[in-house]
Amino acid sequence: MSNYQYIDGGVCAPKGFQGSAVSCGIKNPEATRLDLALIYSTEPCTSAGTFTTNRVKAACVKVCQKHLEMGDIRAIVANSGNANACTGAAGMEDAKAECYRLAELLPISPAEVAVCSTGVIGLPMPMMRILPKFDSLVEGLSHDKGMPVAQAIMTSDTKEKTMAVEVEIQGKPVRIGVCCKGAGMINPNMATMLCFITTDVGIDRNVLELCVKSGVDHSFNCITIDGDMSTNDTVLVLANGASTVKVESPDDIFIFQQALSYVMLEMAKHIVQDGERVTKFVTVKVVGAETEEEAILASEAVAKSSLVKSSWNGNDPNWGRIIHAVGYCGAPVEEEKIDIDIAGLPACRGGLQTDTPSDSLREAVQVKDFEILINLNRGEYNHVVYTTDLSPEYVDYNRSEYAYWNQAKADGLTS
Amino acid sequence: MSNYQYIDGGVCAPKGFQGSAVSCGIKNPEATRLDLALIYSTEPCTSAGTFTTNRVKAACVKVCQKHLEMGDIRAIVANSGNANACTGAAGMEDAKAECYRLAELLPISPAEVAVCSTGVIGLPMPMMRILPKFDSLVEGLSHDKGMPVAQAIMTSDTKEKTMAVEVEIQGKPVRIGVCCKGAGMINPNMATMLCFITTDVGIDRNVLELCVKSGVDHSFNCITIDGDMSTNDTVLVLANGASTVKVESPDDIFIFQQALSYVMLEMAKHIVQDGERVTKFVTVKVVGAETEEEAILASEAVAKSSLVKSSWNGNDPNWGRIIHAVGYCGAPVEEEKIDIDIAGLPACRGGLQTDTPSDSLREAVQVKDFEILINLNRGEYNHVVYTTDLSPEYVDYNRSEYAYWNQAKADGLTS
Repeated sequence: MSNYQYIDGGVCAPKGFQGSAVSCGIKNPEATRLDLALIYSTEPCTSAGTFTTNRVKAACVKVCQKHLEMGDIRAIVANSGNANACTGAAGMEDAKAECYRLAELLPISPAEVAVCSTGVIGLPMPMMRILPKFDSLVEGLSHDKGMPVAQAIMTSDTKEKTMAVEVEIQGKPVRIGVCCKGAGMINPNMATMLCFITTDVGIDRNVLELCVKSGVDHSFNCITIDGDMSTNDTVLVLANGASTVKVESPDDIFIFQQALSYVMLEMAKHIVQDGERVTKFVTVKVVGAETEEEAILASEAVAKSSLVKSSWNGNDPNWGRIIHAVGYCGAPVEEEKIDIDIAGLPACRGGLQTDTPSDSLREAVQVKDFEILINLNRGEYNHVVYTTDLSPEYVDYNRSEYAYWNQAKADGLTS
Repeated sequence: MSNYQYIDGGVCAPKGFQGSAVSCGIKNPEATRLDLALIYSTEPCTSAGTFTTNRVKAACVKVCQKHLEMGDIRAIVANSGNANACTGAAGMEDAKAECYRLAELLPISPAEVAVCSTGVIGLPMPMMRILPKFDSLVEGLSHDKGMPVAQAIMTSDTKEKTMAVEVEIQGKPVRIGVCCKGAGMINPNMATMLCFITTDVGIDRNVLELCVKSGVDHSFNCITIDGDMSTNDTVLVLANGASTVKVESPDDIFIFQQALSYVMLEMAKHIVQDGERVTKFVTVKVVGAETEEEAILASEAVAKSSLVKSSWNGNDPNWGRIIHAVGYCGAPVEEEKIDIDIAGLPACRGGLQTDTPSDSLREAVQVKDFEILINLNRGEYNHVVYTTDLSPEYVDYNRSEYAYWNQAKADGLTS
């Protein structure tokens, strides 16, 4: 499936990148789980990022955006357990304090630091637990910490999400490393997502920005519903040129962009697939739409329908619920033109049931991974959304964040 | 709370209306549950209706709309267990066959019949079970069948939803009766909703249509998300003038419209409240919006967020998730202006947590019925949405419709 050579090392695989991770006791008071990570380039970088479009933005997101406006970043510090969102002026001070502290410990300016947080919203950051760990965080920097870095940004994720690939450009090997986090059980509307990408190509910032935008549109935005992003979603890419390969020609840019998009799409799929409580990985593919917007509306309506997702959880190949969701998507779809294939079997033709035996359809969805193919038969536009079922365990898991609040109360951060 | 005098009789309470209900074995093969209802006015009526905006419309909805275009209706026949949706030309023939059969048994034309269905989508109607019951259905018509009619249209509803009120207009009593169905466990996006209203006032059709539209906008549309209606949603109002009171003057129209809106809002709330698997009835009230659209976007984003609804199920007063949903609603809300009260307690002011003890907030949501009040502090527009929590049992309940499909297979209606 892939033409890329997988290599070890994650975000530390590209030359000149180091990582470190420690536990501050944000995720659990016993401080047995890694929850603070640092990624650092020994060389200056060009950098690009995309951020949540939520009007409620975490303090750290605002600081990241500001630092990217001011110039390029070459260090990323990220914690899990607290999102530093809805924390006002104090939250801004906390985020900046991390940047300033790093600039005291590393040969960089505060504005070269990106600061990221993920976790519970609305609680002050437990800075008394975080800042004292910065010395050991920086002391721990090394080239073999890709995995601990990936672990430190996990929240409800059940698996580390990290990889690295090597690609040949101008006859020389270059590397792209990545780590990301989503959630153990994805509601695609809500997954707080962090993704950090490192590469040792040299590349102009404006070109890098275009590559990042294109990659995100075809990966992370295919598991997110219309602007429905969390307060903290962040994708950051750092390119330090340490491979001595400069990506400039259209051919080289094409190769780099394809590789970048590939690792982004792999990470996006991993986010969806992760989690004990998710039992299905479903690809919702809409073809034959009259416009791209129509394809997006129809695929997202199906992918976010609670009733459709519940039926997948029950191994119920319920095409009636699927066409129902297509019908209310907001585009002028035509019932009598709609074809639906479920896991490769024709379930609906021209808005009507086919003679595919219902037992065959039920059998076909008794797998972890299947595709819903919806042909609107109105035009040439397509769109794909990757999503999951909705399980009773998802709801149960999300019923309460008491544990975090109780800890904040013990820390004197809330009443 | 109400200025209206409640009376018995449901849709048969207004003068000149009769009802009947039988079991055809659509809902269960043993035919122990009522699943076919008839409402009939002995006098001609003026009539009005509103229907789903889903592009995938049930055959019965298309027939209803056609008949209302052709003139007025005075009989409603409704079944539960099969939605007659995505059934193509055969479904249209089935719906029309019901109208023609009724016109043979009653002194009305086929076009005076509204035909409604609710239940599973995509299966042919079991007409071999339905049409043979029409004789006994018509023979059973009487003035005391309001309750059986309400029972026959139930699907996953756990309670009958019916009421009648008496109002004085021009010094004389007039009556409005109603029955409706939603679902036992409401996902407000998805509830298939039928509502039949009878009244013995006389009223011009164009006035009645305006009254119905206004009532629906402030009731059923407050439990439905932006066009996200089912294939079958239908509200029908029949006015037969049997009270001899003609509603014509602005004052009389006002009184009638208020009463009509009142019964619609009561029914809408009952739909939301119904169901063992729903543990909370939550009123999401947004005030201080800059535009009406902003108020609607913000309230609906909160009311349909899986994470917010899951937290309510867990008695978790999670204002962080609420402001997060407000942030992605699509309107240009301003984080630092947002105030949130939960069950009467200030939880968030200016986008930040208050000093309300978290124990007090938790205590406050340990009730079945509470309000989330969100002040955007940007203008003068308000909107209210009535919604529920999301429970693990909801998902479990909706995992499979196998039982219906197995019955259809036994009937030879699917393969």
